[in-house]
Amino acid sequence: MTIKSKIRTIPHYPRQGIMFRDITTLLKDPVGLRMMIDELVSRYRGMKIDKVAGIESRGFILGAPVAVALGVGFVPIRKKGKLPAETVGHDYTLEYGVDRIEIHIDAIDQGERILLIDDLIATGGTAEAAVHLIRKLGGSIVECAFAIDLPDIGGAQRLKQHGVKVFALTAFEGH
Amino acid sequence: MTIKSKIRTIPHYPRQGIMFRDITTLLKDPVGLRMMIDELVSRYRGMKIDKVAGIESRGFILGAPVAVALGVGFVPIRKKGKLPAETVGHDYTLEYGVDRIEIHIDAIDQGERILLIDDLIATGGTAEAAVHLIRKLGGSIVECAFAIDLPDIGGAQRLKQHGVKVFALTAFEGH
Repeated sequence: MTIKSKIRTIPHYPRQGIMFRDITTLLKDPVGLRMMIDELVSRYRGMKIDKVAGIESRGFILGAPVAVALGVGFVPIRKKGKLPAETVGHDYTLEYGVDRIEIHIDAIDQGERILLIDDLIATGGTAEAAVHLIRKLGGSIVECAFAIDLPDIGGAQRLKQHGVKVFALTAFEGH
Repeated sequence: MTIKSKIRTIPHYPRQGIMFRDITTLLKDPVGLRMMIDELVSRYRGMKIDKVAGIESRGFILGAPVAVALGVGFVPIRKKGKLPAETVGHDYTLEYGVDRIEIHIDAIDQGERILLIDDLIATGGTAEAAVHLIRKLGGSIVECAFAIDLPDIGGAQRLKQHGVKVFALTAFEGH
């Protein structure tokens, strides 16, 4: 079994021409879920991670188990208006319009080594905004980890231009 | 250290009179996060759980690590329109208006024993809708587990009227 073989592709979702990569079939499979988390944990175990940050909301599903297994704290990065205490935010451009993600200002301490996790990297816009937020709080990003990379869309290259390392468990060609 | 001592209270959020119980201070603490997950895992280890279902999105942060530790699959229950494949949904009433949660129809098999997890139970409206969805797919609910119960609001009582067992790691009096 491979992680990739457990990911379901839904053609033309959410619109014509998009091949949506659906991880729910991987998550519901006990072997697939465990394999995905174990691979991330074994990669980062020796890397002196201080905290794992996960991007709402599928990034929470990967990030929280990795934080627990590494024995570190977990920090949620959320959509605008979802975090109750004082936040810093960063706007990023979508295909149509602008969105914003936020982090609590006390989520990360100066100099902490952060592992940033989301389920998938496409354009990299959200992850790039998350990188800005973590750095604004004084965190240093050890790596950005994803279950899935869509390399033809170029998000990983975009992150690398900010001096960020990128890792993905699997990749799908095309859009 | 107790789990309760790591939960931050934010007065008058999201509006006047509400004491918001913020788990992000617990999540970012490595000991607090581990303690919360370990307590859930040790409670459910002998209970023949087949899958953990978590309610979007803070329920993902608790539910996914518990699923991984139990060696079972994880099922996300999401807000309307977020799941890409075929779903069943259930409407529930909010203070102002109606909301809807959904689950993939292939997420749960007939007869599976499901542990339902969310971060907090207040009115119990969302959890009640999730109970309906799981039962609609033929799942049997072993228990609904929460980090926080607000007993004065009565959500746990509401769930028990459906014959569902309820467990919470800690409770706060008042609203």
